[in-house]
Amino acid sequence: MPRRSWKESGRAFVAPVGRGIAAAGISADAVTITGLLFAAGCGMFLAVGEGRIAAVFLVASALCDLLDGAVARARGGGTSFGAALDSTVDRYGEALILGGVLIDATVRGAEAGLLWLWIAALSGSFLTSYVRARAEGLGLRCDVGLMERPHRLVLLGILCLLGPPAVPVLLGVLAVGSHITFVQRLLLIRREGRSGRPAGG
Amino acid sequence: MPRRSWKESGRAFVAPVGRGIAAAGISADAVTITGLLFAAGCGMFLAVGEGRIAAVFLVASALCDLLDGAVARARGGGTSFGAALDSTVDRYGEALILGGVLIDATVRGAEAGLLWLWIAALSGSFLTSYVRARAEGLGLRCDVGLMERPHRLVLLGILCLLGPPAVPVLLGVLAVGSHITFVQRLLLIRREGRSGRPAGG
Repeated sequence: MPRRSWKESGRAFVAPVGRGIAAAGISADAVTITGLLFAAGCGMFLAVGEGRIAAVFLVASALCDLLDGAVARARGGGTSFGAALDSTVDRYGEALILGGVLIDATVRGAEAGLLWLWIAALSGSFLTSYVRARAEGLGLRCDVGLMERPHRLVLLGILCLLGPPAVPVLLGVLAVGSHITFVQRLLLIRREGRSGRPAGG
Repeated sequence: MPRRSWKESGRAFVAPVGRGIAAAGISADAVTITGLLFAAGCGMFLAVGEGRIAAVFLVASALCDLLDGAVARARGGGTSFGAALDSTVDRYGEALILGGVLIDATVRGAEAGLLWLWIAALSGSFLTSYVRARAEGLGLRCDVGLMERPHRLVLLGILCLLGPPAVPVLLGVLAVGSHITFVQRLLLIRREGRSGRPAGG
């Protein structure tokens, strides 16, 4: 599993920075919220067609997402609240970044087809994470999938840099890839699940 | 808790219909998927400005959502897959219905402000359910909240019937109500959670 070892080396790399931030008295949750503000900035700059500045904000947001876990570990482990805040902020950030893409596309007179593609990309991104959270609530592990968050972030970064001409292709890749992941995870639940149908909503 | 008893009486009311569908050999998952198709129809008709037909599709979709659980219970209880499918289809349906609102608003020349409001309404609806699923994954119950799915469905029904002039107000109510619910649930996790920071994504 190369992804595992990549994740492990990433953690080792940011651990000293995490310890430094923790030593300065800054909490993991504060780093998480800062990441959300950078994601909001990324969306705002995308909305006004400033893709390069948006890319800088996207990188800053991804760094915060990497660092909040390191700070939590340096402070002796995170909380359930920190874990829930971290995940929801990730989803929120993706909505804001894709929101910027939507606004820019609309200002440029996007057709209904592109808007439905945008809805498919956002829903797919969201459902990939939602179905995993539901699986964990049902007592199943669910970390398989073609397109996880790091891949989505790279796609969004390329989208920032290439700008409007690349938007249909990149939204298409995001929509198809995230839906494949979503279906992969649903099928995993079908294979592994046995009984119990708790309510959602 | 009036909501509980309302839910219980709703279940008792649809139980005979659920038994009839189950006796006809139709699975709960087939009913769930049928509900998604109706939600897609609702979104499509909203997209072309046919709110009244959309409202009929919305009611049909909500009925399927009520009935899939009844069919599962009539067949001796649901599966984890059925539970995950039911929840993800609910989220998907809301995205498709709000997608129709977005397309119609864009065709009518919506300003960026209304589009950001739409993004807030969709993100809030998603996050209300996502934070609950994450809480359950962390071993916490999380069924509190000002605006749960039945309230969102009623708002979407009103939106179908009143049409474009009512869209800004109803999106605003949906955005504010769902964000309050999302924050209520996050705060509940903060009060109840103790330790552990599993990864999301």
